Formats: sequence, C-alpha cells, structure tokens
Amino acid sequence: MKISCSQSALQNSVNVVSKAVPGKTPMPILECILLKTENNVLKLTASNMDLGIESIVTDTIVEEEGYVALDAKLFSDMVRNLPADTVYIESDDQFHTTIRCGKAEYKIIGKSGQDFPKLPIVKIDEPVVLSQLTLKNIITQTSFAAAVNEANKMMTGVFMEIHENQMKMVALDGHRISIRVIELKQPYPDHSAVIPGKSLNEIVKNLSSEQQNEAMIYFTENQMIVDIENTTMVVRLIDGEYFNYEQMIRAQFKTKVIINRRELMEGINRATLLVKEGDKKPVIINVTEDKLELMGNSAVGTLKEDIPVVKEGNDLMIGFNPRFLLDALRVIDDEQVTMYLMDAKSPAFFKNDTETYNYIILPVNFLNQR
Amino acid sequence: MKISCSQSALQNSVNVVSKAVPGKTPMPILECILLKTENNVLKLTASNMDLGIESIVTDTIVEEEGYVALDAKLFSDMVRNLPADTVYIESDDQFHTTIRCGKAEYKIIGKSGQDFPKLPIVKIDEPVVLSQLTLKNIITQTSFAAAVNEANKMMTGVFMEIHENQMKMVALDGHRISIRVIELKQPYPDHSAVIPGKSLNEIVKNLSSEQQNEAMIYFTENQMIVDIENTTMVVRLIDGEYFNYEQMIRAQFKTKVIINRRELMEGINRATLLVKEGDKKPVIINVTEDKLELMGNSAVGTLKEDIPVVKEGNDLMIGFNPRFLLDALRVIDDEQVTMYLMDAKSPAFFKNDTETYNYIILPVNFLNQR
Repeated sequence: MKISCSQSALQNSVNVVSKAVPGKTPMPILECILLKTENNVLKLTASNMDLGIESIVTDTIVEEEGYVALDAKLFSDMVRNLPADTVYIESDDQFHTTIRCGKAEYKIIGKSGQDFPKLPIVKIDEPVVLSQLTLKNIITQTSFAAAVNEANKMMTGVFMEIHENQMKMVALDGHRISIRVIELKQPYPDHSAVIPGKSLNEIVKNLSSEQQNEAMIYFTENQMIVDIENTTMVVRLIDGEYFNYEQMIRAQFKTKVIINRRELMEGINRATLLVKEGDKKPVIINVTEDKLELMGNSAVGTLKEDIPVVKEGNDLMIGFNPRFLLDALRVIDDEQVTMYLMDAKSPAFFKNDTETYNYIILPVNFLNQR
Repeated sequence: MKISCSQSALQNSVNVVSKAVPGKTPMPILECILLKTENNVLKLTASNMDLGIESIVTDTIVEEEGYVALDAKLFSDMVRNLPADTVYIESDDQFHTTIRCGKAEYKIIGKSGQDFPKLPIVKIDEPVVLSQLTLKNIITQTSFAAAVNEANKMMTGVFMEIHENQMKMVALDGHRISIRVIELKQPYPDHSAVIPGKSLNEIVKNLSSEQQNEAMIYFTENQMIVDIENTTMVVRLIDGEYFNYEQMIRAQFKTKVIINRRELMEGINRATLLVKEGDKKPVIINVTEDKLELMGNSAVGTLKEDIPVVKEGNDLMIGFNPRFLLDALRVIDDEQVTMYLMDAKSPAFFKNDTETYNYIILPVNFLNQR
C-alpha cells in the first residue's frame, strides 16, 4: 500500500473510528485500526465486535492499493503529533510501514489485516433520515437510564421504535424509565430494535452538533447502520423482546407539582454534598401548600431548603435517589417541570403535556433510612 | 460566632486557603478550615504544617466574634454550591454550625479550633516586593527540576537567593539543574533560603497573572512569608546548606547548536510516542553540519527526524531522557534556543547570552540502550 493524504483528514478519520476500538480484548487484531484502499479510496476501520466504524479519509491519493493493520493507540498518537502537512504512508508485503510527514519519518511494524473482522454492511430498505443533532439529543436524553451492569442484557439496551412519523427511544434499569419521542419529517414503515446503550454512547460522539447535517439509519435483522458523511457505523442489536414498559405508565395522580427545574437541581446538588458516594442516602421531598421542602441528612449534617411550587392535590412526603432525579432533570429542556405523584411508594413522573418526554423514577423508602 | 458575607468573597477565600489543606494527615484538625473573627474581620486559615495560608473574607459583617473549625472538603463543596447571595454563618458553644444562603440552610457540626496550629507570622525586615506574575513565572520555570522523592530533603527544595537587585532561583534533582535570574526594581540586603518545591507549587496557584498585582516576601530564620492582597502564606524553610551547584556550571563547550525550540519539542514528543511510560529509552541527538538528527527507537518502531540548525564546533551524538529536555524547553520563552555541548558524557546547557536562564541536563548512555 502506498498513499498520501492530509494530516487533518487522516486525524479526523482516526478520531472517528477510534470510538470502536475496544478498551481490552482477547483478540489482538481488534486493538488495531485497519487501513485499506479500494478503488482509489482509503478507508479506516475499527471494531469491538458490538460496534464497527468505517471512515473514508478524504482526498487521499492512492499510488498502490493494499492494506495494513496498525496498533490503534500508537497510530492515533503518531497522527495527532504529526505536523499539519501531507502524510505519506507506505507498507510492504511484510507490513513494515513507513509514515512520513514534514521532516519526521516513523518506521513501525504493522499486521496483516486478513483476520480483521469484516463489517457486514447491508443496506436493504430505505433509510430513516434525520438531523444528526436530533439523533444525538434523543440518545443522550434517554440512554443514561439504561443499565450498565451486564446481568440483564436487555436492560443495557435502548429500545428504538419507528411508528409512522415518530421515533421513540426508551431506556430503563429497574429503578427508572426514560422515554423520548421526536417527530420525523415523513412517515416510515413501522420498525423496532433494541440497541446496546454502550454503542449508542460511542456513536453519539461522532454525531455533528449542526442541525443541517443528516444521519441515515438502516436496519437489518440484527444490525443498525448509521451513515453520516464519509462514515458508516454498524451496531449489533440485542436479540429478544423489550420490556412491556407501557404497563408501568399511569395517567392518574394525586399530587401535581410545578417547579423551577434549576432551583430543584441546585437544591438536590446541595443536599447530596452531605452524603458520601455509595452511602445511598435519599433526598426527601415534602410537598405542602405552596412549597417543596427538600431535606437531606447524614451523620455529617443536614440540609433544608424551601422551593416555591404550584401544587394541585394532596400533600406528600417522598424520598428519592438524588442521582436519578438529577440525571432526568439535567436532560429536560423546560424551565418549569411538572411532577406527578401518587403516594410515597409509587413512581414519580416528570412529563410535559404532549408527552414528548416522560421520566419515571421509583421512590426509595426513606422512613427506614432516616 | 455570627457573621454574614457574600458567597463570592467566601468562595474566594476558601479557594485560596484550600491549597494548604493536606491530602492526608495524621492530625484530623488539619483536615479543617479554621474560621475565626478578630476585630470585626473574618479570617480563614488552613495548614499542612509545611505551608499555612490565611485569608481575609472581604466585607464580612461580624455580629458576634468567635471561631469554629469546619471540615475543609465539605465546607468548600457547600460554599461552591450556594447561590450567589449573602451567606449567614452562626456557630454556638458546641460548634453546631448553621450556614444559610438564599432558601438553603445547612446544619453541620464543627470542631473547636483550639488545637489548630497557629501560623507564626512574624514580619521583621523590609519585604522584597515584586509582581505576582514575575514571582509566578520564576517559580514555574525552576521548581519542576526539584526532586519529588523525599530521600534527599534538600533536593526537594528550591534555592532562592536575593543579591542586590537580583533574585535567583535554582532547583536540581541530580540529573538536571534549572537556574533563573530576574531583576528586582531596587536592591535588597543579601539573603538566601531553601523553600520546599511542593509548597512553592501551591503558592503559585494563588498568585495573580496580572503584572500590576504585587507580592511581598518576608524572611525569618526558618520561614518565608508571602503576602498578597488579603492573604498571607507562610512556608517552613528547609534547614541546611544548599548544594554547591555553581561548580557544575562550565563555560567551555565544543559544540554550539542554535535550533528552533518548537521544532525540537515537537520532534521529541514524536520520538517519545514509541516509548512506553517507565521504559526509560533515551532520545538520541546526532548533530552534524547543518542539521540535528533526532532518533527514537523501541521494540515498537523507530522515528527519525532532521531539524535544521546553526552549528559551531564538533559533530556529536548524545542521548537524553526526553522528559528532561521537554521540561526545560517548555519553560523557555525564546523562539530559538542555544544548546552548548562538550561530549556524549557531559551535561548539555540551554542558556541565553545574559544567562537569565540556564538549564543543565545530564545525558544518558545511549550506546548500551540502543
């Protein structure tokens, strides 16, 4: 292989595919980035088996077609430290590789890319098209609620449902549920899939924050493919039925509280200072006539804080894991949020009127813990 | 004690004194910040025995004089998370302390400050006065070369010498020496002291980057006191004779190399990528007619890079610990640096004509290591 390209284009592609390089892996070849030319185009590929990313290095001049797999960390570090100039990469039959740029010349030993797993990119149906920014938002506004612990594989997934011109994402971990719905520009055939939250969190990093940049999403039986400019990301789906989360949603409530989101967040932050990590102390909320009294206490001390609210219905005292409240409040855009409560043992709902978001959080029994 | 002050002034003082709070200590009282009023002024104090810092909280209203010691981490976290409003702090005889701000009210239990070590602030002679920025610069440009390892206490110190209208700082660790000299605005009586590098690195964080803000430095037999606006920092000096570093300085050289500082740094950075942390592989410099050839190699691969130079004298091949070169090059302001070399076993000197800086670095034997 013999190619030349600009340092900036190469660095860009390296950054993009690096999100799929596994932290640790029993397969040494996956610690590499595969460089491969095809029809005068240089593509970089990385994969951790769950997520594979392929990126075209723009404006590459291919003098001699070929391929080589280079250690991902070393190659990224090198490319990042090269001057902003033309990079020349040459690799022989033994995968001895020379990387030249400016006055610097690296010689390293690569590997054959023969055993590098192929990304099975099959684009059959029409893609779902949406803004990268919109996709980025709906992912970050839901995926945090997916379980991290692998004990229940399905819980580590994010449920995505396309229904007519709506896309819905749902994540849950047994203590809370996040639901977001967005409008698409046109209707699409109904489809649903469970996508690993971990892979989604890597994909998000490659999505643009510009509203006008689009992403195209394709589904096969066991894959989701996200296409953005010069880059294709392939995710292996989680197999099986997602949870019947809809049965956990209820429209009744006995207490409705409208509160300033920022005031509530800041109060919860103050309350959690008293609690050491892993102490699992709840924050207690006492809703009375026109105020919400926030209480935190531990061996270290206590916090009390009154936040004005507009309340309908019963007075109520209820305890929550403060992190779950903060995670949800952080991704809600509204200045005022509405909380729907039933009793001290039933989940709280943060939702807007159109239900484009619905965050459901189970309370904790604070009486034993006080 | 009963006081009120603005959240911003309190946070500022907490930040300043926090630099003296020890990471771990066998004396629990040192994990606290002491709040103490005296003549209607609120002072915060923290100390790790080597460094003590005292800061006045500006515009405090003292309703009732007194004192209390509060856990430093908890108190800093609280203050940082309070709204930008007036903070009311009240503490009773049992050191039960209430902190109110906006709608938030903390109750925590403090300690008596009785056993908190007193900062022995004795200002006898006239202070040395200089810009905080100048002091900050001369410290950061030398202290990195002081030893971190406590095995040789004197080596962990930075030597400061006042001679007429010059201030000199020197640090060394057995492999390198950093020397910086600055001009003061007026002559002062001769004085020298060895200041713990660790304490200097904390003091630096409290120095302003504004040229016009001044610092006043006082010396006693075993202390240095640095006074800046509303804040006094007291450092315990290292007792004993500093090294006779001047005998290690030599004016002769056989090779003189003028090179672009940035090009050399970037080349060394590229060479070190090949070397794993702790591998102790040197970077090799081969000076010939009009170029400096930089070479790095390891099991992973090799780097070669030619950097144009202006050379006088002999050709020379010499090896260095790349980190020592980078540490020195990073703090030199000049665009072109001059390197004076003798042979492969003698130290290299990076200095300017006026010798306001002189960085001396011992080479490593690269022949065995190649």
